[in-house]
Amino acid sequence: MRDRALRVIAECGRIAAMTEEPGRTTRRFLTAPMHVVHAHLRSRMESMGMTVRVDAVGNLRALWQPLNATGKRLLVGSHIDTVPDAGAYDGVLGVVMALEWVQIAQELKLPLGIEVIAFSEEEGVRFGVPFIGSRAVAGRFDNALLDAKDSDGITLADAIRAFGLDPADIHSAALDGSALGFVEIHIEQGPVLEAEDMSLAVVTGIVGQTRLSLEFTGHANHAGTTPMRLRHDALAAAAEWITQVESLAHATDGLVATVGKVTVKPNAGNVVPGVVDVSLDVRHAHDASRISAVEKLIDSANAIAERRGLALQRTDRLDQPAVPMDERMTSFLADAIEAAGMPVKQMPSGAGHDAMVLAARVPTAMLFLRSPGGVSHNPAESVLEEDIEAALKVGRKFLERLAVDARQIR
Amino acid sequence: MRDRALRVIAECGRIAAMTEEPGRTTRRFLTAPMHVVHAHLRSRMESMGMTVRVDAVGNLRALWQPLNATGKRLLVGSHIDTVPDAGAYDGVLGVVMALEWVQIAQELKLPLGIEVIAFSEEEGVRFGVPFIGSRAVAGRFDNALLDAKDSDGITLADAIRAFGLDPADIHSAALDGSALGFVEIHIEQGPVLEAEDMSLAVVTGIVGQTRLSLEFTGHANHAGTTPMRLRHDALAAAAEWITQVESLAHATDGLVATVGKVTVKPNAGNVVPGVVDVSLDVRHAHDASRISAVEKLIDSANAIAERRGLALQRTDRLDQPAVPMDERMTSFLADAIEAAGMPVKQMPSGAGHDAMVLAARVPTAMLFLRSPGGVSHNPAESVLEEDIEAALKVGRKFLERLAVDARQIR
Repeated sequence: MRDRALRVIAECGRIAAMTEEPGRTTRRFLTAPMHVVHAHLRSRMESMGMTVRVDAVGNLRALWQPLNATGKRLLVGSHIDTVPDAGAYDGVLGVVMALEWVQIAQELKLPLGIEVIAFSEEEGVRFGVPFIGSRAVAGRFDNALLDAKDSDGITLADAIRAFGLDPADIHSAALDGSALGFVEIHIEQGPVLEAEDMSLAVVTGIVGQTRLSLEFTGHANHAGTTPMRLRHDALAAAAEWITQVESLAHATDGLVATVGKVTVKPNAGNVVPGVVDVSLDVRHAHDASRISAVEKLIDSANAIAERRGLALQRTDRLDQPAVPMDERMTSFLADAIEAAGMPVKQMPSGAGHDAMVLAARVPTAMLFLRSPGGVSHNPAESVLEEDIEAALKVGRKFLERLAVDARQIR
Repeated sequence: MRDRALRVIAECGRIAAMTEEPGRTTRRFLTAPMHVVHAHLRSRMESMGMTVRVDAVGNLRALWQPLNATGKRLLVGSHIDTVPDAGAYDGVLGVVMALEWVQIAQELKLPLGIEVIAFSEEEGVRFGVPFIGSRAVAGRFDNALLDAKDSDGITLADAIRAFGLDPADIHSAALDGSALGFVEIHIEQGPVLEAEDMSLAVVTGIVGQTRLSLEFTGHANHAGTTPMRLRHDALAAAAEWITQVESLAHATDGLVATVGKVTVKPNAGNVVPGVVDVSLDVRHAHDASRISAVEKLIDSANAIAERRGLALQRTDRLDQPAVPMDERMTSFLADAIEAAGMPVKQMPSGAGHDAMVLAARVPTAMLFLRSPGGVSHNPAESVLEEDIEAALKVGRKFLERLAVDARQIR
């Protein structure tokens, strides 16, 4: 498995060089380097005997259908678009690993059909909307999206046509009933596995998210001439609240809550802040825990504002329920980890993934690989060779089990 | 005194219309509308029998020297430059009131010379340096300032020449030994007198100021994938510190401490903040109290950074000692308020004023008028007619006392 792991790392590095910007990896949805990646992957896929197509939303899809298999097939994949100045592994690793899994299945002559999907869009960079590729595959593409424009004013419909595809065919990207399930292999993009010195985790679900912003409005006053007792300092109020956000998250198992963005007006060192706008991002695997935490935080913001004589304005931005992974597929992955001789770590994903979208359509599971330093969306993003080896071993056990299972349910 | 008060308000309104920008009051140092204000004031000054000149830094100076007076004279005045989109009273009121005081002295035939000074520059808007007019009068003008450039790249030396003056003569703007003292009448620019329902205050001194900024550096991380226990959130640290700044200021008599400016990086709702830069502005009438407060706040910032595994960087911006007003001149003003039948309120000035600069050279006192709503540096800036009447009555008592006193010390 060692050579295979090195091959995976090298392959991700090669694909990282296929970019819109010389010297750094930026590969947005339906841009020219996507053709380059498609040609590169297609060549390997076809040499492996796979049937390759690009669907109408730009997903590259390669089917391995052995003669001894049932008509049902496993889907494996991830996305090949990137954020600006990206690393080499977010998304791409899951596609390259999928091909290794196919190769393992071929070597073992497993009677299992596998479709590898390289999703065309997950990051939401080009049109401000994420998961466009997986939405089409899940049959959840909204045609209104075709009018969305990128920063150059190009509509999604025109971008699809410019890529040589026909937006009228998007419906044909949707899965039929023949998928056994979907597995996405992805880097963790967080520090948990590294902190616990583990290679892999089975994802239990994608956390639900609430995003909102709060605007505290007090009075801007002269920092020298306004005594403390006569102030209505919007920043002091926001700061008090930010400490409560952090405290509640620390006190609530599995909760993350973040104030990431602050806008202060007038934002001058010698003026008591009059208006402060703060963002709130709350995530939890259980929706009830998330909703309860958000309610507590809104209550405490109101109490702070009232006590200080400030106005408070709330703007909701996102309220996205948690998406649990499929129990049976997830247990197959966990069993495979155990069968490969490793301890089983289960954890939620704090970030969204294509798996979240596919889960609405097919039994879905997700495998995380440790992210050294927790680093992602950054050229310093990396994976450890040993973790890839571990994921290859798990793939072998998982595919063996699934091949037996698929035969039984034929 | 009622008509006189109305005349003062009308006069301030007329001068507010002499502006660089139609529709709002903006009158920077040595700009064209300064000539208009000079011509307007000069006309009134000359009609009052005063001798008028413009010194080489653009201060308009008018001397009333009655035959029965000693050679010594009282200086009274304030500045006539403004911030952008200013009100009508900050600075200008002190000049217009000074002329009313002269008229009172004339009517009472007081044997007292009075020089009214309309300082050309106090706000620091045009060259980023405040108190240029009063520095020259105090003999503390630094010639290096002549090379300072405004936002159009014009040097101070060229601006002085374009105004029809000669920068080589600035030394002649400095006071000789014949000033009895300086009195500045100014709006409070804060809410204290209004909160206490009082017209006037005698200023005990100009508070000392410390300005610095602190940069908390943690780690920017994904808001979804980074558990609370593995975060080094620079904003959570800064927020904790901001609450301590506020608490200490509340707990320390006479202290004001303000965090007015916050810069968050990367400042995205879904990213744990990696770097947060916050300003600190601390003011107190007693330097020891201010310095001790700053030390405590730096200590607590260090403790917060250390406990959270963050780096802390401090950048000092200003360390300006408090400037006490002259005890004797101040007691004359306080006595005058009492003699005029009003309660005496003494308070420090939280903002800098020309009086701060003059105090290094001559016995200086300052009289505050209530600022309705605490509003200043804003078109909504106002003064109450009754407060102007009060300040006129105080002027009469003060000038009578000073005339006697000046004669005694001849």
